[in-house]
Amino acid sequence: MKPVHQVKITKGMSVYQIVEELEKAGVMGAGRFSRAAKILQKMIQDKECTVFFGQAGAMVPGGMKQIIIDFLQNKWVDVFVTTGATLTHDIVEALGFKHYQGSAHDNDEKLHKQGYDRMWDSYMQNNVYEKLEKFFQENKELLMQATSIREFLTKLGSITPKESILRTAHDNNIPIFCPALADSGIGLMIWGQLEKGNNFPINAFSDIKEIIRRSLDSKKNGVFYVGGGVPKNFIQQSMQFSKGAYYGVQVSTDVPHYGGSSGAPLHEGISWGKLDPRGEYADLYCDATIALPILHAALLEKIN
Amino acid sequence: MKPVHQVKITKGMSVYQIVEELEKAGVMGAGRFSRAAKILQKMIQDKECTVFFGQAGAMVPGGMKQIIIDFLQNKWVDVFVTTGATLTHDIVEALGFKHYQGSAHDNDEKLHKQGYDRMWDSYMQNNVYEKLEKFFQENKELLMQATSIREFLTKLGSITPKESILRTAHDNNIPIFCPALADSGIGLMIWGQLEKGNNFPINAFSDIKEIIRRSLDSKKNGVFYVGGGVPKNFIQQSMQFSKGAYYGVQVSTDVPHYGGSSGAPLHEGISWGKLDPRGEYADLYCDATIALPILHAALLEKIN
Amino acid sequence: MKPVHQVKITKGMSVYQIVEELEKAGVMGAGRFSRAAKILQKMIQDKECTVFFGQAGAMVPGGMKQIIIDFLQNKWVDVFVTTGATLTHDIVEALGFKHYQGSAHDNDEKLHKQGYDRMWDSYMQNNVYEKLEKFFQENKELLMQATSIREFLTKLGSITPKESILRTAHDNNIPIFCPALADSGIGLMIWGQLEKGNNFPINAFSDIKEIIRRSLDSKKNGVFYVGGGVPKNFIQQSMQFSKGAYYGVQVSTDVPHYGGSSGAPLHEGISWGKLDPRGEYADLYCDATIALPILHAALLEKIN
Amino acid sequence: MKPVHQVKITKGMSVYQIVEELEKAGVMGAGRFSRAAKILQKMIQDKECTVFFGQAGAMVPGGMKQIIIDFLQNKWVDVFVTTGATLTHDIVEALGFKHYQGSAHDNDEKLHKQGYDRMWDSYMQNNVYEKLEKFFQENKELLMQATSIREFLTKLGSITPKESILRTAHDNNIPIFCPALADSGIGLMIWGQLEKGNNFPINAFSDIKEIIRRSLDSKKNGVFYVGGGVPKNFIQQSMQFSKGAYYGVQVSTDVPHYGGSSGAPLHEGISWGKLDPRGEYADLYCDATIALPILHAALLEKIN
Repeated sequence: MKPVHQVKITKGMSVYQIVEELEKAGVMGAGRFSRAAKILQKMIQDKECTVFFGQAGAMVPGGMKQIIIDFLQNKWVDVFVTTGATLTHDIVEALGFKHYQGSAHDNDEKLHKQGYDRMWDSYMQNNVYEKLEKFFQENKELLMQATSIREFLTKLGSITPKESILRTAHDNNIPIFCPALADSGIGLMIWGQLEKGNNFPINAFSDIKEIIRRSLDSKKNGVFYVGGGVPKNFIQQSMQFSKGAYYGVQVSTDVPHYGGSSGAPLHEGISWGKLDPRGEYADLYCDATIALPILHAALLEKIN
Repeated sequence: MKPVHQVKITKGMSVYQIVEELEKAGVMGAGRFSRAAKILQKMIQDKECTVFFGQAGAMVPGGMKQIIIDFLQNKWVDVFVTTGATLTHDIVEALGFKHYQGSAHDNDEKLHKQGYDRMWDSYMQNNVYEKLEKFFQENKELLMQATSIREFLTKLGSITPKESILRTAHDNNIPIFCPALADSGIGLMIWGQLEKGNNFPINAFSDIKEIIRRSLDSKKNGVFYVGGGVPKNFIQQSMQFSKGAYYGVQVSTDVPHYGGSSGAPLHEGISWGKLDPRGEYADLYCDATIALPILHAALLEKIN
Repeated sequence: MKPVHQVKITKGMSVYQIVEELEKAGVMGAGRFSRAAKILQKMIQDKECTVFFGQAGAMVPGGMKQIIIDFLQNKWVDVFVTTGATLTHDIVEALGFKHYQGSAHDNDEKLHKQGYDRMWDSYMQNNVYEKLEKFFQENKELLMQATSIREFLTKLGSITPKESILRTAHDNNIPIFCPALADSGIGLMIWGQLEKGNNFPINAFSDIKEIIRRSLDSKKNGVFYVGGGVPKNFIQQSMQFSKGAYYGVQVSTDVPHYGGSSGAPLHEGISWGKLDPRGEYADLYCDATIALPILHAALLEKIN
Repeated sequence: MKPVHQVKITKGMSVYQIVEELEKAGVMGAGRFSRAAKILQKMIQDKECTVFFGQAGAMVPGGMKQIIIDFLQNKWVDVFVTTGATLTHDIVEALGFKHYQGSAHDNDEKLHKQGYDRMWDSYMQNNVYEKLEKFFQENKELLMQATSIREFLTKLGSITPKESILRTAHDNNIPIFCPALADSGIGLMIWGQLEKGNNFPINAFSDIKEIIRRSLDSKKNGVFYVGGGVPKNFIQQSMQFSKGAYYGVQVSTDVPHYGGSSGAPLHEGISWGKLDPRGEYADLYCDATIALPILHAALLEKIN
């Protein structure tokens, strides 16, 4: 049995050196953090591995958009699965809006009157919806051509005016899947168009074919989950009829003992055939707005 | 300011009497539990109120299916929004399978070999997928007629052979919405059909129209969330352009301070215009497999 | 393997009947709740079993004081271990004060000016300290005779004017242990006396002898933890050199994966020799202000 | 209102540069992390500030001992309050033992037979108690002279053979307080001595005088909590009759909404007069075995 070494931090250590130091401890959060960084590094550097990145939670209002963009831009990711909320916040910023540093203790009725929508201590102006509406109205002809959500998001990325997740994925040929896109501000924009009699012939199921094919066609699969929900589960189910994922990293604040998918530790996936029992996995119980920047810094030291 | 009364439990108290006793304490979980029961009672009994029930999490493997069925059967609910996983587990049981009492400490590789899929300490046999496949194959003609997820689920309910959520919703004309149905065993069955060249012309967005119309057309709205995820958010967004929900109860094990939708306290919705600031809300931080049976028992005492 | 039965709640079911119904589900929170109730019943009814009740957390401000009193009054408990905060809140109420139903969103600076101390959404008036001081000043002669914390608390119970945990334990000859009594309002009162030159010759360690003797002398031990912290750990360590606990129930909102004692599942104690591997244990992840009233009601049905 | 800037991580950024980048985001965990680092830096560098460090949880088995030692060695801390468990694990390593990297899924009965005590995925050999006993037996004459816990721990530090928290605190004249020392392996050793008829005349309350005096005598107070429990609360109560803490940082995995002291956000202390409303506070919801190494690295860049 390996002993727990006490972590020694010295002045000037780089983030990756800290990660290596945490590896010596090997237990609890420190050990999981180190394993997470090392496994991410492996899955990104393994040429045979297709990396599926599933992301849920308020990452754009929480300041993590650029890190997601950099993961895509660096081609560290082959498939991106996310929520409609993330893409809505992404396009809102691309259209020139900002999110704001607020307070979790502000009065919600007052905020409503002032036109701010609150996500814990981050705010968004409610008038983003008007500009979003205008943007969809202007681009509806293009968007109405899409027949799958993934295709719709590629088209949307092609016209997104500024640096954004959508644009970066488009420019780098990385597919974005978002099974529950209807459940978002973007969904509401399409609803507005439907109410005007326009038709969006987007099939609800056709994307499953592509994501499962990607999982089947690769030599190895790696999964990286930031948050749970639909993005995690949609990737997990794409693994079920393939060889399972060989690498896995999960950053989550949910817990296992209520039985839900979001909190399920990765190894539970082995019973389903979604993960390869010979693979390498790390479950990190940590706020992603803390873990992601540190993991990103560690990876930048070692990759490229 | 009201004093906290110390809760006094006496022999033979009914569940509703306990709920009333907890109301005297008025604070922390006890107070929230009591408020949750009272507000649920009000939203169900208020003739003008449309009740939207959003449910996520492993409620069928966790033994809560019958309670959900009873909520629908009792017509306590007007609109039901759920996950594909819940509906898959529901139909699996309707086709004659059971879930099993397992252990969170079993070896997942061994379970995989034995053919059991694990959800924490509940198991499902992996061969359910074969029977599911057969069932979809036999009924594909009917199911291929649906053009929306809600319509698809109504058709599915019409042919579900035994007591189930799907069947009960169908028999009671309660719409089921499931924006992320692609992300589930049912989604996989449709994928299997697509691979065989069959066509399921189900639009990804048309359901938004119906749920928003339901929210707009009612005199009052009530929301009841068991878990977060897409079901909660899809209902919340349907409130944004209506008058907002007047009653709200949320049973969740997620926490507010990471900024995600699942853990957001209901009053955050006031800033968005999704909840009416004059309304009544209770956020219950509790495992739903504990809270639901007790809440149900309390409601049964007072309604009808 | 046992199947998961779907829980069926019918009108008029008693709390114990609900508990038995939850047992059929047997998994997740429902199963743990049922097991917790049954194991509590067994440990209380087993004549050979010494029941150690460890309690931490804001149970008096949260309205659970009377339930703790009833557990003691019913002689369901043989040894009670708690925090100084619980005993301070207990004596504060016995001296005629109340706690108040507040709000977690009130401004703390305003509350300070108004003289209210906040515990989440429960308040206490800050002037309780003056009356506490007077009470200790008047009774110092008696209290200064104690040489152990347990003896000190027995003397304190003997003079506590109204129904209280302290008084009930005293009247029923149930020892109260509180290793960290210095860390509380009562500790501050003793500090006030020390500053006046009075002497409290209370030994910090002598209580270990008695609690370990209780653990050693019994035929069987049962442990009931509401919250973690020092009360849980102090009981656990008293089991380490005895036969270990045979029955165990833990109600906690802490989680296992950070490695702390409060969140450690009971079975971890088996590795230490603190729990008997043949025993019966249930870990309930639940707010105690929800679980305790329901568990109490269930027990009252079955135990005279 | 300040906008949320999206965090940009570039190759070669130092930890402190990452901290500054997170400050621009300003919200959720990222913002709290950055604030925590900056406030720690301020409280350490403010010559007028007395820094109280309260620590609970499995930090030695989790690999964080050296970081705590370095905080003491660097004189970043003026008063250290901890649990008996931390000091027991500390002395166990000083006597030549190691903790081990284990697994949370090992069988506890097997571990017991093999002589390993488990704390989640970290193990300790059970035979440490024999050597501890011998050590206390050999040094009892010195230890029996102590009349307070703080004095006892200073004497213990003076004879601890290797680099340890106890030794470092002793060598640097930093007092260690541990109100619940009875609740630990060290408490058990004293119990063993008591059983042999030896006397440890350690008063349970005399340390309150010193910690309150330290709080009263300083110009400013800063509090740094890693975990909650008795260490946090004991420091908090020492602030109640002084000017309150001016700086505060809390690293915790507990949550506010159950009303307990461990999960209470720092600003709740303002209502009690334990914190200065003009001060600077940050509550970090994070596994300390992840946060501490990163915070330490950031501080090392800027201090000295």
